[in-house]
Amino acid sequence: MKRKKVAFQGEHGAYSEIAATKFFPESELIPMRLFQDIFDALQIDSIDCAVVPIENSIEGSVNEIYDLLLDADKKITGELFLKIDHCLIALPNSTAVNKVLSHPQALAQCRNYIKRNNLDAIPTYDTAGSVRLLKEKKIIDTAAIASRNAAELYNMKIIDQNIEDRKNNFTRFLALSDGQTAPSKSDRTSMIFGLKHTPGSLYSVMQEFDHNEINLTKIESRPTKEKPWEYNFYVDFEGHIEEDNVKKAIDKIEKKCTFVKILGSYQRGTIN
Amino acid sequence: MKRKKVAFQGEHGAYSEIAATKFFPESELIPMRLFQDIFDALQIDSIDCAVVPIENSIEGSVNEIYDLLLDADKKITGELFLKIDHCLIALPNSTAVNKVLSHPQALAQCRNYIKRNNLDAIPTYDTAGSVRLLKEKKIIDTAAIASRNAAELYNMKIIDQNIEDRKNNFTRFLALSDGQTAPSKSDRTSMIFGLKHTPGSLYSVMQEFDHNEINLTKIESRPTKEKPWEYNFYVDFEGHIEEDNVKKAIDKIEKKCTFVKILGSYQRGTIN
Repeated sequence: MKRKKVAFQGEHGAYSEIAATKFFPESELIPMRLFQDIFDALQIDSIDCAVVPIENSIEGSVNEIYDLLLDADKKITGELFLKIDHCLIALPNSTAVNKVLSHPQALAQCRNYIKRNNLDAIPTYDTAGSVRLLKEKKIIDTAAIASRNAAELYNMKIIDQNIEDRKNNFTRFLALSDGQTAPSKSDRTSMIFGLKHTPGSLYSVMQEFDHNEINLTKIESRPTKEKPWEYNFYVDFEGHIEEDNVKKAIDKIEKKCTFVKILGSYQRGTIN
Repeated sequence: MKRKKVAFQGEHGAYSEIAATKFFPESELIPMRLFQDIFDALQIDSIDCAVVPIENSIEGSVNEIYDLLLDADKKITGELFLKIDHCLIALPNSTAVNKVLSHPQALAQCRNYIKRNNLDAIPTYDTAGSVRLLKEKKIIDTAAIASRNAAELYNMKIIDQNIEDRKNNFTRFLALSDGQTAPSKSDRTSMIFGLKHTPGSLYSVMQEFDHNEINLTKIESRPTKEKPWEYNFYVDFEGHIEEDNVKKAIDKIEKKCTFVKILGSYQRGTIN
């Protein structure tokens, strides 16, 4: 059987790659530089699936993914929560380290640690890519913040571990692929809707969830980009699109909105 | 009279400085490196006011400001919408430019332009700071994305202007200071609340706005950081905290929430 091609953002050793391995253990994992590259590849079917971070328990939503989902034609087919344990990583022969490279979200998650240790934080595109950069350029006065996997992959030294400021640091990842998963009795559905220009229109949509006993687990707004200060709303709720109360609510909501897009129903993730 | 000390994030020439000048024309403008530095300075009263970006019409909310407002003891006293016109800026003797430096939000706002011109995008802390860096280090093969003001301040060449991908690019800025502004009949109020752990609790809060004919203009969720996947909600609505219907709604909402924090009532901004 041909192995599935699964894309993730970042370099080998990235947290997204760890999540992708858990979703699709036997697949061919393809690193891509930008989230946009992943969604472009999904569009032309040069890959089968993708695994992307949607939300971190400390830093919040990954806005760019929300925006890219608006135009994506694949479905969300799975969800996974990954514990994030950041390591401070350097070359085995590193000297007194005074700078630290990493993705802005990782730097933000270690803000206090960086301050306490008087490090100069330098943002980059990628956690694991920062480790690779130190290795390739033989930079000995700088460290990178990344996963233990990244350190091992590039044979680097772990100076310190669990350096994140808050220990309840999890990232929620989504799997994107063709098709729609069957109900599992423990599902979540993600959808997007656009509101009509009438006062109370958001409340009126929320009413339909309430009347159909659907429990919202997340609500997020993103600019439409068409007109300033107009938003699309992204909601996650418990239930599957094939369940009767969900169908009923969506039917009503469709009449109240400028558009409704179901991103997918999928089994709720557990902590990995 | 002593001039007010007003802090903004970034270097001289930053968009935030342009906004600060419009809010407080006669003040002493103090550049600070991080948003955290600004809120620390407000806390110990080493500055009188601050001007911070809260939201961009394309890229959405500035999450870090939302998080910092949770603990801030100053009030929001003003709002202003600034049109963002990005310029591509380089040294007057620059050669063929193949790299571009700027704040990640500015890079994101010029994504198509950067791609079309085959530039390698390098994230930095600051738009105007990137211009200063090119100047100080005499880097001739790299450009920066920043405001016209930044180019003029550092005597740099504007290679191209209005390079943002979408022309309806505005940033909403807030002024923070002591005290509470009086009602102007065209006000907005910003508040934060935490929900109790009962299904439908968000809906129940929304109900109070609806019943008191209060029009929500924005809703945003941010992780509580205490427990994964629990959120605080940030809402903006039309009206002033001293108006009766607003008072009534807040009274009811306080009983339904774990906490309510009023960030301030302020005159709604116009486009500058």
